Amino acid sequence: MATGAVDIHTHIVPVSFPAYAGRHANVRWPSMAPGHDCRHGNVMIAGKVFRTVSDECWSIERRLEVMEASRVGCQVLSPMPELLSYWLEPEDAQTLGRHVNDTIAAMVADGAGRFSGLGMVPLQDPDLAVRELEHLMKSGGFRGVEIGTNVNGVSIADPRFAPFFQAAEALDAAIFVHALHPAATDRLIGPAPPALVLFPCETATAIASLIMGGIIGRHPKLRIAFSHGGGVFALVLPRLMHGWKLMPGMKEKVPEAPATQARRLFYDTLVYDKDTLGFLIERFGKTQLCVGTDHPFLIEERDPVGAVETLGLEPADQELLLSGNARRFLGETA
Amino acid sequence: MATGAVDIHTHIVPVSFPAYAGRHANVRWPSMAPGHDCRHGNVMIAGKVFRTVSDECWSIERRLEVMEASRVGCQVLSPMPELLSYWLEPEDAQTLGRHVNDTIAAMVADGAGRFSGLGMVPLQDPDLAVRELEHLMKSGGFRGVEIGTNVNGVSIADPRFAPFFQAAEALDAAIFVHALHPAATDRLIGPAPPALVLFPCETATAIASLIMGGIIGRHPKLRIAFSHGGGVFALVLPRLMHGWKLMPGMKEKVPEAPATQARRLFYDTLVYDKDTLGFLIERFGKTQLCVGTDHPFLIEERDPVGAVETLGLEPADQELLLSGNARRFLGETA
Repeated sequence: MATGAVDIHTHIVPVSFPAYAGRHANVRWPSMAPGHDCRHGNVMIAGKVFRTVSDECWSIERRLEVMEASRVGCQVLSPMPELLSYWLEPEDAQTLGRHVNDTIAAMVADGAGRFSGLGMVPLQDPDLAVRELEHLMKSGGFRGVEIGTNVNGVSIADPRFAPFFQAAEALDAAIFVHALHPAATDRLIGPAPPALVLFPCETATAIASLIMGGIIGRHPKLRIAFSHGGGVFALVLPRLMHGWKLMPGMKEKVPEAPATQARRLFYDTLVYDKDTLGFLIERFGKTQLCVGTDHPFLIEERDPVGAVETLGLEPADQELLLSGNARRFLGETA
Repeated sequence: MATGAVDIHTHIVPVSFPAYAGRHANVRWPSMAPGHDCRHGNVMIAGKVFRTVSDECWSIERRLEVMEASRVGCQVLSPMPELLSYWLEPEDAQTLGRHVNDTIAAMVADGAGRFSGLGMVPLQDPDLAVRELEHLMKSGGFRGVEIGTNVNGVSIADPRFAPFFQAAEALDAAIFVHALHPAATDRLIGPAPPALVLFPCETATAIASLIMGGIIGRHPKLRIAFSHGGGVFALVLPRLMHGWKLMPGMKEKVPEAPATQARRLFYDTLVYDKDTLGFLIERFGKTQLCVGTDHPFLIEERDPVGAVETLGLEPADQELLLSGNARRFLGETA
């Protein structure tokens, strides 16, 4: 196992996609078109450039260069969230997911211990998702899966997804929850893309829903982490606690305090601000934060280790943030 | 002028409403039905109990008792947000608004200097809203108005409302923005009401939109405050700043840094948590936080002065939070 920091929030895109061979029409199936130079490609979806990506998305060598520079010993690879494909027919999403998962498994296998893998499952069909999760965890190349905060607008805390979380706990699969297709985009005015302002709200709503909807309470061994420091959940929590204590019937439905449940979840450090990171550590516990960077996308944190070091923590606590917590989240240590 | 703390976030409900005398059918016009005892009433909307409220909503004497107990010298009175009535025809909302505003003006006039007033305007018709704002500010009983974060799902930062903010700045009217009808309620699972989890996100989205959409930048003298500590905006801000610095074209469209603009806005202290309040003071500045309680509703903060005192601030800074900032927001001091 590599030493150094463990980055739980990095994404991959396969260098190419198979042609669509399914039986549906007008499928939002991705393809890769050449970029402006040999080191870039354009991910095409529905005839448009979804995102121009660099070869860091698929090249082990290029990633290792970046990891060297940023002092990251191990990257956890997960799909670019738009590849999660909840909007495809389940069998199409399964086919695409297998291609993405094979890509991740190959990178992990070829990466000399520098990579761990989080795959994807077609959560739009919960039964199929459970079967894919079993298949994936038995394959040996994965620590767990990445999922979105919602599936075509339905919260992952909706009861229909309960069997998936139950299976994840039983299979000892780590779950990394990434904001996806946030709500309320029509209420955001100005040039900031929804990912900047609404991802944090979307993630917080998902966490609150998983806690208040009972998923976290029912699965105490579930290892689940949330992108972008849990979004804005750290500031939602005091208000949620105030209501939980005060409002009739709340404690009967949710016996364990939301703040207690929140301190069992994992969160990445991708908040771009020292004071915010310190605040999250106080709120969620020094045992619950893991390095996350969003590598290799534009918005990535380029000095994730420095961001932790600047907090001036005790060496043992710093080690928890840099790697110990991530290894616990991934199930590599107890 | 009363001494003591100034609470900028309190609501009123008139003891009764006039019968609907307009010309539309199926109007969501409120009425008051008797409560379970003489000290309560039921606000009825569309044939259902919207909320059971106590006589603290309309009784000066009852409010003064509570203010005595909570060491609040002056309450700023604003309508219960559901009375804002953006969903009525403009002339109906104007009629209802005049009744609510008259109620507030009478409470201010009879309150021996212990109350200030924020009225309401029919923002669903921006031109009419501007005329009502002029009427209201000339009447002498008001410091400004309360508005929602959205008008029937349209963000208040939408260009259609620009004339309203321009008029507010010109008329020296304080604006108190309160979360209203948040988006994404279908993504919240569990027994927590949307107001607990989604109000903070709704408010943050409105602030980000007012900043990125240009309203705050174009009106440097606008005095505007946000409910519930600005919701979760304090945690959205670092990510917004990261994107603003990094993404092409952002600085051309929004020349002044969002974090700088954010430190011109006012926020109430209604966050139910000492660490959160301290965090907001660091983020927004000790000159920008004002006491807020949500009196007289269930969720109210019952010891707002104690919540500030527990921070152990310098006496001058504590005084800013307890009253100085509020008086500046209200335009009573420069």
